[in-house]
Amino acid sequence: MFDQVRIVLVNTSHPGNIGGVARAMKNMGLSDLYLVDPIDFPSTHADARASGATDVLRNAHVCKTLDEAIGDVQVVVGASARSRHIPWPLMSPRETAAKTRQSIEAGNKVALVFGREDAGLTNEELQRCTAHVHIPTNPDFSSLNLAAAVQVLAYETRIALLEAQETKENEDPKACETQGGIASKWGTDWDYELVTREELERFFVHLEQTLIDIEFLDPNNPKQLMARMRRLYQRAVPDQMEVNILRGMLSATQKKAK
Amino acid sequence: MFDQVRIVLVNTSHPGNIGGVARAMKNMGLSDLYLVDPIDFPSTHADARASGATDVLRNAHVCKTLDEAIGDVQVVVGASARSRHIPWPLMSPRETAAKTRQSIEAGNKVALVFGREDAGLTNEELQRCTAHVHIPTNPDFSSLNLAAAVQVLAYETRIALLEAQETKENEDPKACETQGGIASKWGTDWDYELVTREELERFFVHLEQTLIDIEFLDPNNPKQLMARMRRLYQRAVPDQMEVNILRGMLSATQKKAK
Repeated sequence: MFDQVRIVLVNTSHPGNIGGVARAMKNMGLSDLYLVDPIDFPSTHADARASGATDVLRNAHVCKTLDEAIGDVQVVVGASARSRHIPWPLMSPRETAAKTRQSIEAGNKVALVFGREDAGLTNEELQRCTAHVHIPTNPDFSSLNLAAAVQVLAYETRIALLEAQETKENEDPKACETQGGIASKWGTDWDYELVTREELERFFVHLEQTLIDIEFLDPNNPKQLMARMRRLYQRAVPDQMEVNILRGMLSATQKKAK
Repeated sequence: MFDQVRIVLVNTSHPGNIGGVARAMKNMGLSDLYLVDPIDFPSTHADARASGATDVLRNAHVCKTLDEAIGDVQVVVGASARSRHIPWPLMSPRETAAKTRQSIEAGNKVALVFGREDAGLTNEELQRCTAHVHIPTNPDFSSLNLAAAVQVLAYETRIALLEAQETKENEDPKACETQGGIASKWGTDWDYELVTREELERFFVHLEQTLIDIEFLDPNNPKQLMARMRRLYQRAVPDQMEVNILRGMLSATQKKAK
């Protein structure tokens, strides 16, 4: 289960923080680290702070874009310090851990995405997320060190997954049915597999082109239209059949528009 | 309530760790720091890692013995990496936070005591504790960075105390039971009101008609298409703006289809 959780760091400035994150991950039993466009990596500073978790650093995937880092993942949760222009589903670390557990039990991968030390994730990056997570820090001193933020989320994840393992051992399948709606389960007991991020991105590209074709979206003045559509479809956590149907509709629409 | 929680660091070697602890504390709303026989303090390394939490360092009490640091405190919980020769009441971080909350609500002070980076607390020190707390780390890589350990305990404490404050404010002991359905959950702090069922039904009628117009849905052989679309959109719990956009798209599509 622990290998289904990915930590993604976007555009990290200080290699020491990457090392601190690797240590926090390994302490909590996580090992899948993706680094999107790190400023300075590999680095001896990272190795020093990792203090025995250098294997996590050695096995880290370095990539250019967030899309590459989350392409094969079904559920993406972005760490967010502040509320955004368009509100997005926002969870506490504990809720995130509970949903992560459910998603993982259903066979999915979950990525926890952390932004830059100074500026966090951009709006564009946050709009690629299924949901956002906010660590309820002191409002007068809210900026957590990057490794500390990962520590908190990784810790909550570990507790939830340890509980899941215990439950499994006790063979009580109902113990985890605590969260309410189907969407909140992110794929439990579902008829089709959830789409990966790559498939979802292809759907958004198709949707955007179709909206241009039917002259509903003006590419010169797109406003918040696609952001709102991203938020809507991502929080539904669609399965492959649903996305197939949606794309079928789009193709039929495009045919008519010609 | 937060001022009734004390963090005690015993015999810390690296001043950077003391700074990291100060930052973690302030992030979680804690400020009462006691340093028992620190190897190197005050220090510019501590200030650097504290990054804005230097007030916590300035106000820290430095003392010679653990007894001095916990003299005026009612409840002492010592961080322990391993089980001891003599078993002691041992709690998880979450249990510790719950008991901390209870102790604080009863007007007591609680000290969380952390030992040396390499060797933790001695048996003698651990035996001065009301109880021990163990962070359930990866058994193959169990040694948490000192600031990370404080981060986890301070975070759990903060969550428990925030819940206590909310409960107090609402004078409703059930106030924290807010997990339930996604609608209530994700409808809060949203930019637009959620749609009513009536509005959603009108959207489904519009969607179905449009799918017929573009010849994607055959009314004589509808299959499960609308059922799947209902499931998808309903579990996203759309707001009024989102449904307005979706219906705008449908109208634009219908125009093209004619």
